Amino acid sequence: MRQTKNPFSLSGSTEPDRIGEIYRAAAQIICEKGYDATSMNDIAEAVGITKAGLYHHISGKKDLLFRIMNFGMDSLEEQVIQPARAIEDAQQRLQTIITNHVHLITSRSTPQGNNPVTIVVDEVAGLAPAHRRKIDQRKRAYVDLIRETLDRLKAEGKLREVDVTAAAFSLLGMILWLSRWYSPGGRLTPEQVSEEVTKIALGGLLRPQGRPPGR
Amino acid sequence: MRQTKNPFSLSGSTEPDRIGEIYRAAAQIICEKGYDATSMNDIAEAVGITKAGLYHHISGKKDLLFRIMNFGMDSLEEQVIQPARAIEDAQQRLQTIITNHVHLITSRSTPQGNNPVTIVVDEVAGLAPAHRRKIDQRKRAYVDLIRETLDRLKAEGKLREVDVTAAAFSLLGMILWLSRWYSPGGRLTPEQVSEEVTKIALGGLLRPQGRPPGR
Repeated sequence: MRQTKNPFSLSGSTEPDRIGEIYRAAAQIICEKGYDATSMNDIAEAVGITKAGLYHHISGKKDLLFRIMNFGMDSLEEQVIQPARAIEDAQQRLQTIITNHVHLITSRSTPQGNNPVTIVVDEVAGLAPAHRRKIDQRKRAYVDLIRETLDRLKAEGKLREVDVTAAAFSLLGMILWLSRWYSPGGRLTPEQVSEEVTKIALGGLLRPQGRPPGR
Repeated sequence: MRQTKNPFSLSGSTEPDRIGEIYRAAAQIICEKGYDATSMNDIAEAVGITKAGLYHHISGKKDLLFRIMNFGMDSLEEQVIQPARAIEDAQQRLQTIITNHVHLITSRSTPQGNNPVTIVVDEVAGLAPAHRRKIDQRKRAYVDLIRETLDRLKAEGKLREVDVTAAAFSLLGMILWLSRWYSPGGRLTPEQVSEEVTKIALGGLLRPQGRPPGR
């Protein structure tokens, strides 16, 4: 493990896509069977690797859970947080956060209608305390980015008269819940669902255009 | 079990409040330790009952999980669904759904900042298939009530140009996420958080007042 660059990747592997597939497959089984009922054997079978091969890289279920969560947070970092930080304008940044995060969830939804990695990221109760603190810290950094963006919109007079913390978590709830209901086989395409959620979220957070701040 | 009126209550008990306490305490341990790591012993200890006493009423962890979920859905039925159904006006009904559901979650939040029963209701992966179908069915009935209310608002020209399904789940996400972030020891009182979430949700779903339906 010491020689690998990324402490969360399967050591020695040169196939990052394959690693992602393993984490996604494991997350899907955990969501289907429950973390309790899922064995390392089930996971090895689903990803087409021997149980011994899986244990060579991962010390156990708790370790795998932590890796899946970091994998999910890495995707969030690359596809949502970094692009958003690069945008100066607060309203455009908020829009990018919503659109990119919705895309991240819907693009990885399974035909069963949920995004297993996003769901597993919430299963922090199964983690060792030190690992739980790390995941909580990464989540907090994202909430802080959203709050900071909303604070700026408030300063610019563009935000409704709402509490910034309540607004940040309401937005997050709206987006994250997608992982539990959106089905790619359903009526709405990922683009449509992104448009709908963006419309509802911005409608709820931003002052109706043309209204003076007093209203 | 056949003689009890409510098939989900602890048979023979005449203390419904005590039963609620048991389910709430069990849900809290499951959220803290994870379902996997929680033993029937932990639960018996937390609720001040012997392990044998607990097994006298509940056949095991899976059974307890199902009971906690039904307990959560019973509360939703009594405090949100029934009062909402009694309201004829669609906008007032929507407002009642939001306010009462937010209240249900915030009034039972623990100092750790989450509502264990609401969270456990989502752990359907741990259930036996027949039980999972029953819980899914109860949840679907609630989603249908929200959709029906939004459909009426659409017919009245009061809803934004949004897809009703996306709107229903966005609203649910906003409300249910409260169970994961709201802390009763924090800055916002339950009344304030209810007001904030209602403002954001109605702002996102309803057409700004005075705007013609064309916009």
